[in-house]
Amino acid sequence: MPVKPGYARKIDIRRGAVEMIHGSGGRATAELIEQLFAEHFRNDWLDQGHDGAVMPPIVRPVAVSCDAHVVKPLFFPGGDIGRLAVCGTVNDVAMCGAKPLYLSASFILEEGFPLADLECIVCSMAEAAREARVAIVTGDTKVVERGKGDGVYISTSGIGEKLTDRTISGKNAQPGDKILVSGAIGEHGMTIMSLRENMTFGTTLESDCAPLADLVADVLAAAPDTHVLRDPTRGGLATTLNEIAGESGVGMMLEETAIPVSNAVRAACEFLGLDPLYVANEGKLIAIVPANEADAALAAMHANARGRDAAVIGTVTEAHPGFVEMRTPMGGVRTVDWLTGEQLPRIC
Amino acid sequence: MPVKPGYARKIDIRRGAVEMIHGSGGRATAELIEQLFAEHFRNDWLDQGHDGAVMPPIVRPVAVSCDAHVVKPLFFPGGDIGRLAVCGTVNDVAMCGAKPLYLSASFILEEGFPLADLECIVCSMAEAAREARVAIVTGDTKVVERGKGDGVYISTSGIGEKLTDRTISGKNAQPGDKILVSGAIGEHGMTIMSLRENMTFGTTLESDCAPLADLVADVLAAAPDTHVLRDPTRGGLATTLNEIAGESGVGMMLEETAIPVSNAVRAACEFLGLDPLYVANEGKLIAIVPANEADAALAAMHANARGRDAAVIGTVTEAHPGFVEMRTPMGGVRTVDWLTGEQLPRIC
Repeated sequence: MPVKPGYARKIDIRRGAVEMIHGSGGRATAELIEQLFAEHFRNDWLDQGHDGAVMPPIVRPVAVSCDAHVVKPLFFPGGDIGRLAVCGTVNDVAMCGAKPLYLSASFILEEGFPLADLECIVCSMAEAAREARVAIVTGDTKVVERGKGDGVYISTSGIGEKLTDRTISGKNAQPGDKILVSGAIGEHGMTIMSLRENMTFGTTLESDCAPLADLVADVLAAAPDTHVLRDPTRGGLATTLNEIAGESGVGMMLEETAIPVSNAVRAACEFLGLDPLYVANEGKLIAIVPANEADAALAAMHANARGRDAAVIGTVTEAHPGFVEMRTPMGGVRTVDWLTGEQLPRIC
Repeated sequence: MPVKPGYARKIDIRRGAVEMIHGSGGRATAELIEQLFAEHFRNDWLDQGHDGAVMPPIVRPVAVSCDAHVVKPLFFPGGDIGRLAVCGTVNDVAMCGAKPLYLSASFILEEGFPLADLECIVCSMAEAAREARVAIVTGDTKVVERGKGDGVYISTSGIGEKLTDRTISGKNAQPGDKILVSGAIGEHGMTIMSLRENMTFGTTLESDCAPLADLVADVLAAAPDTHVLRDPTRGGLATTLNEIAGESGVGMMLEETAIPVSNAVRAACEFLGLDPLYVANEGKLIAIVPANEADAALAAMHANARGRDAAVIGTVTEAHPGFVEMRTPMGGVRTVDWLTGEQLPRIC
């Protein structure tokens, strides 16, 4: 990229910090964008250097999603707010049964935030975007005064193209369908909680934060009649299944023993009095598929590194529409309700 | 919309406030979304009720833009953060020479923020979206603790389809082109500043915050060979023209007397020691068009309510590439530099 007149001053990323002037829209803003964001996100569209980017037509149905990210702390085992901001939105687009193509990213920076930390976050976004094969095509940066933010908040929006013409929606679960989860639950949420609580056995916990676009493509290739795809983030598996049960007007019967939970997550949950069913995931998906495609969907998940520990965890029922029930190891049945309390604020 | 199981509790919007639990991802989050956001934004795509929305193919080139909005105060004459969040992004998409179609909206809410104020903002977004003929198709809501935000921050992302196959870009200004501005400058920025400074003569100031998609369509119909479209927001007219001069490798010569500035903005600028050239606009655009299309572009602007006071304010030159110069009323020439200082933080 040629040096443009007016972009001559070099920012001291190693020792510098975000200043109010970086949000002014003037030269300092341009320098920050040019030397930090454009430097790492580099792609043909972003390099158009405009407030907007222009891409080729999207000739299949278009999927759009967005997420604001306010996770605390900003850095955690398995990722950081940057990786999360890419994966969270990529996954929401993928859950429409779509291939994510483009991301936009808006940053709200707090005055005084170290530029070196910002660079780590931006690098991490760039890496996650490469992993997910999406381009960050446009962005925006605002600065707020000390005490009006918390380091950095990142909002991302994603655009993708549908991989299938069939409807994939939370309204589409049908009695008899099998419910699959792509791996062990609760890892992202318990990683964040263990950091906040300074739990020393947290060393074995790591966020599952990962892009799931490939896994979705694999599942749809194997089980083309998939009815629902959803990633159980905030509120966890229980809340997401309750939403789907409500939207589809169906019941669900889960098998508690079939739900994969790691020993580390189980131990941390017991210590903090939490239920892994309500703890956020950032690299897991729920697929609800017709019974005759369940084996194929499960095999496709097992063949993908992101679905190695996938399992069939229950069945969609006609009985008790809107309610999720679970058979316990003792053989009893209990209702799995919505998350109602303030369990885990600022988890993503 | 049918009442879904689990959505039974009515939120007290008139007297209630944002609580941490509204960001938990559980029932309270769903209630807030259902009763506040979905209620006002209602459209076929949003009503899909998913983390993502699916829309028809976009068969023309796709324009994408995004903006984070942190304006302070949240409410001001002529608009509020909601109207701004819609217009800011709609306009960035339009400046690609595109018709804006869809918006996504992410909210970062501060604990304790009155729900009644949030409803005003959401209503204002809905109204601006109707005015701009875009649909808010997907959204996200996060809550941060008291003292970690400032009421509400809104990030929007917009998607549109190109109206023309020609390139419209800040790199495309060519010597001999005419520079047009669609109306009087500095109104948004001076409205915000006068509120912050408690200036009593601020009563005549009103933000120009408005969607410009129609104006862009009119200009492109009249002047199909338009080279550059840009909205001079943060940093104002001077900063935007400097950016374009840098990107295109051209010079510019402005005529100071031709630049429209209202008496109220001029007075407020003099009082606060500011230069209107550097003050943000939220309802104005710059068009740079070949000399033979300048009259047609100007007439098209004059025929649109949003361009009534449009004017030709200068010419693109070969001399002094990267620099913007201005002929003063006295006949002298001065350089119009970038905005370098921290003039107006949190203006949008």
